[in-house]
Amino acid sequence: MVRLGANQYGKAEVRVVHVSRGAGPEGSDLVRDWNVSSSLSGDLAAAHLTGDNSRVLPTDTQKNTVYGLAKKLGGIEPEAFALELAAHYTGGQEAISRARITIQEYPWIRVSGTGHSFTRSGQYTRTVTVIDDAGLGRSVVGGVGDLIVLNTAGSQFWGFARDEYTTLEDAYDRMLATVVSARWRFRQPDADWGAAFQAAKAALIEAFAQTESYSLQQTLYAMGSAIVTAVPQICEVRLALPNKHHFLVDLAPFGLANENEVYYAADRPYGLIEGTVLADDAPDAGIAWS
Amino acid sequence: MVRLGANQYGKAEVRVVHVSRGAGPEGSDLVRDWNVSSSLSGDLAAAHLTGDNSRVLPTDTQKNTVYGLAKKLGGIEPEAFALELAAHYTGGQEAISRARITIQEYPWIRVSGTGHSFTRSGQYTRTVTVIDDAGLGRSVVGGVGDLIVLNTAGSQFWGFARDEYTTLEDAYDRMLATVVSARWRFRQPDADWGAAFQAAKAALIEAFAQTESYSLQQTLYAMGSAIVTAVPQICEVRLALPNKHHFLVDLAPFGLANENEVYYAADRPYGLIEGTVLADDAPDAGIAWS
Amino acid sequence: MVRLGANQYGKAEVRVVHVSRGAGPEGSDLVRDWNVSSSLSGDLAAAHLTGDNSRVLPTDTQKNTVYGLAKKLGGIEPEAFALELAAHYTGGQEAISRARITIQEYPWIRVSGTGHSFTRSGQYTRTVTVIDDAGLGRSVVGGVGDLIVLNTAGSQFWGFARDEYTTLEDAYDRMLATVVSARWRFRQPDADWGAAFQAAKAALIEAFAQTESYSLQQTLYAMGSAIVTAVPQICEVRLALPNKHHFLVDLAPFGLANENEVYYAADRPYGLIEGTVLADDAPDAGIAWS
Amino acid sequence: MVRLGANQYGKAEVRVVHVSRGAGPEGSDLVRDWNVSSSLSGDLAAAHLTGDNSRVLPTDTQKNTVYGLAKKLGGIEPEAFALELAAHYTGGQEAISRARITIQEYPWIRVSGTGHSFTRSGQYTRTVTVIDDAGLGRSVVGGVGDLIVLNTAGSQFWGFARDEYTTLEDAYDRMLATVVSARWRFRQPDADWGAAFQAAKAALIEAFAQTESYSLQQTLYAMGSAIVTAVPQICEVRLALPNKHHFLVDLAPFGLANENEVYYAADRPYGLIEGTVLADDAPDAGIAWS
Repeated sequence: MVRLGANQYGKAEVRVVHVSRGAGPEGSDLVRDWNVSSSLSGDLAAAHLTGDNSRVLPTDTQKNTVYGLAKKLGGIEPEAFALELAAHYTGGQEAISRARITIQEYPWIRVSGTGHSFTRSGQYTRTVTVIDDAGLGRSVVGGVGDLIVLNTAGSQFWGFARDEYTTLEDAYDRMLATVVSARWRFRQPDADWGAAFQAAKAALIEAFAQTESYSLQQTLYAMGSAIVTAVPQICEVRLALPNKHHFLVDLAPFGLANENEVYYAADRPYGLIEGTVLADDAPDAGIAWS
Repeated sequence: MVRLGANQYGKAEVRVVHVSRGAGPEGSDLVRDWNVSSSLSGDLAAAHLTGDNSRVLPTDTQKNTVYGLAKKLGGIEPEAFALELAAHYTGGQEAISRARITIQEYPWIRVSGTGHSFTRSGQYTRTVTVIDDAGLGRSVVGGVGDLIVLNTAGSQFWGFARDEYTTLEDAYDRMLATVVSARWRFRQPDADWGAAFQAAKAALIEAFAQTESYSLQQTLYAMGSAIVTAVPQICEVRLALPNKHHFLVDLAPFGLANENEVYYAADRPYGLIEGTVLADDAPDAGIAWS
Repeated sequence: MVRLGANQYGKAEVRVVHVSRGAGPEGSDLVRDWNVSSSLSGDLAAAHLTGDNSRVLPTDTQKNTVYGLAKKLGGIEPEAFALELAAHYTGGQEAISRARITIQEYPWIRVSGTGHSFTRSGQYTRTVTVIDDAGLGRSVVGGVGDLIVLNTAGSQFWGFARDEYTTLEDAYDRMLATVVSARWRFRQPDADWGAAFQAAKAALIEAFAQTESYSLQQTLYAMGSAIVTAVPQICEVRLALPNKHHFLVDLAPFGLANENEVYYAADRPYGLIEGTVLADDAPDAGIAWS
Repeated sequence: MVRLGANQYGKAEVRVVHVSRGAGPEGSDLVRDWNVSSSLSGDLAAAHLTGDNSRVLPTDTQKNTVYGLAKKLGGIEPEAFALELAAHYTGGQEAISRARITIQEYPWIRVSGTGHSFTRSGQYTRTVTVIDDAGLGRSVVGGVGDLIVLNTAGSQFWGFARDEYTTLEDAYDRMLATVVSARWRFRQPDADWGAAFQAAKAALIEAFAQTESYSLQQTLYAMGSAIVTAVPQICEVRLALPNKHHFLVDLAPFGLANENEVYYAADRPYGLIEGTVLADDAPDAGIAWS
């Protein structure tokens, strides 16, 4: 005999672009470019077991809701939008006890001197995850992804453990590059979201640049610490940092010396360093990471 | 003040291909084509906090270990390989208390009548996740991914909840397509892995094909039930099923009727249905899904 | 002063799925799953120079036309569909003197014993390019893509040219893998398209499997020759074969011998071998490859 | 009987990163991050026909050559590097009569105030194609790719041709977005490459922003004209512009008005506008686009 366990359903990757006409500097337009996903859970056993859909709000409706709320709420911060969208479901659908909203925001840069022309930044993606649980409260996790950073100096890796499969040599001056994926938990579902994002991103990049690194683990800890220190509303940071290996090419067979000039940028495999940094007084995470 | 929380590190996406010479039918070669990732955790605070790497076995070593064990163990089942690789770390490195191994296996089909020529199947990917924790034991999760299935009939969706954003109409005969991502938890870290995989995959496809579906949720439950029922060594199945929408095209503006013939296959957004099916007597999952 | 040169416009990647109800074996459904692109050229200078769109049939209309013709023509072979779609434009729009149609077809496999359940093959993609020029006639190029093949033996590479950057050693027994992208030109815009495709694909795979290879160039020539020989309606084959390198891993540092068992499957860089094979009496290609 | 036609071979996607130590502003490092592909053609029939590789310089050697020349040439402009790399083959290998080199350059931005920390721009990719033919001379084509631009106003599309499949309505105020892929041909294989690239990119963006557009065709022509006018060394521009449709969402079913605020960003299908703009006195293109 079998039984149904945890389940959720929703609409993934609703691509919505909102333009706030004339709301930007010098009367320019403001653009919010989002990829929104919603996922609902609650008393949904009947749909699975008997085909009774009476408690299933269609995922098509969830798509429509993103567009409708985008109109009603205007070009607000993505964390604020996600909180409203989540509350719409937990407050409006009896069967739904939890809503999980994720947003990826793609930043655009206004073309200087124009009012309605933009280029996509491409430098990073801003991320948001909001969970609203009817019984357990609300959580907000912000973050940044797709941010590629590189240090051409100031990175070492030596004195590591060795076993019979170890051939790596000590490195006292290596390249260090990673694609930052960082997510930060807010203490409260209330903050100056835009300012917090900018401060966290700046602290992260500054820590990457300033850390004389003995390992990517150490750099990770420095990044997380910098964010928690710089933004008091943030109590926890989780980072996933692929080590985008840049190997010094051996040019000796061609009679050439390679004095830290020429590197091979490898694709796979890659190191993957994952870690968490918390404020000493961070409250329990509760549902935030579920 | 800040502190270090949970952390792990490893080598991701080690691409290893193993050939068992002459071990196949009619003296043909056997091919195992894997993408292996390992991630280790334990007493690794010093690396993060002080740059002391003395407990950090390099990710480069982890890469080497995959190749070394591939030689020593030969072309065994991926679940068995992952168990050995995990045990290598928890048994051999004092600082490491947990190892997490994932493998994606890409199936190849022998060209009929040949001994060493193959085409890549492309129909699915086989997946494995093994966790070996020094204190909490071992878990094995198998699975299948990238398996795209389609029912051209036998699917409905009606009688659903409605709100002010609902415009979807009842459907009594729709296309149903999904990319199956299923993961199944074994009761014990010991089974006839190859036979279990084939039986689970066959049960899943059969359930998809035979279910007169009132929702993708119902189909999900049928798939999970079929696996748990068909393979007694499996006690839990988790499925993530994107609803690959195939919308009937409105041909009326062109004076044409569309009698369930012409569909638009949409990319985004897509429904995403996630759920769990368990045996009534499934033991606690413990670390299996962490 | 500047002037307008060659130009074309169209709708790319129209995803259409056509179901022929009950037309398959044992009354099963037949599925055609296509990605169709159309591109038109002709007397379109005004649109570029003055913003006069009176000769521009919208790309939205081109999308609609794919769906409308899918209904009218039913589940025919993609080469036949592309010919009809192209003729629709060159015959119906005065300004349009040339239409270029490309189709990618994704094959599906019926689940045994069912009438309307399918799994996507994933083993290859079938491709078609048709050009219909009002003055220069019509051409049909078929092909196959995404077909990954591997020889675990029977491949060598030695006796090659050397210069000061050469470090590669002779190989007398290496792995050979490639992702086949082959396109074949038909002598006439008329053939038994389905049979020709199957025969060409079979000949290509057979040639790959049977050639004792001294280079991927030699294998390319064998593949092209096999197709031209097996399918008299085809007079020219163009192949692009990435050499998906599988490097033997050096296990000596771990005290292990690697007797052609353990390989590293590399991503980048890769060799890329491109070549053309023609029938001795192949007519001039004309517009076929433009 | 069959025969060999046109053929070429090479190494694709050699990922090389070059660091010029202390050569940047304030003694900072300079980074060149490239993806280099080389392809050679000439008297290579024997390799295809008889397995005689004596004229085949291995693709592995081509990889090595990229690294060796990166050392020898230092962090020069990619057009200059491609010219040197091409000449290395046509000048050094008797069998090779033509070399085709392509480079994609990924731009990095120095972290303000640091000497060796960078973030990847992500805003665009710089592209280069050089062909060096022993008999026909040399050509240089520069370009930009992956540059996403958006106009929130100033775009129209009306007065277009109509047929029985046309349902599109006139648009007098639409969003216009595209991913620019532009390639520009230089008159001579000699220019101030860096300045020309920056000037061409700036002209392109300015033209996109300033054109009151009646079609993407018109915008394409404006972009090409602006480049040819702004950079006299460039005599021809070829553009491929996907129309990244942003559809105004119909909010009427929810009782909401959509006053050009809320858009759905579609993936597929997309319009694809391709065109060429030339200087009146552009010399014949010769081999440049082959």
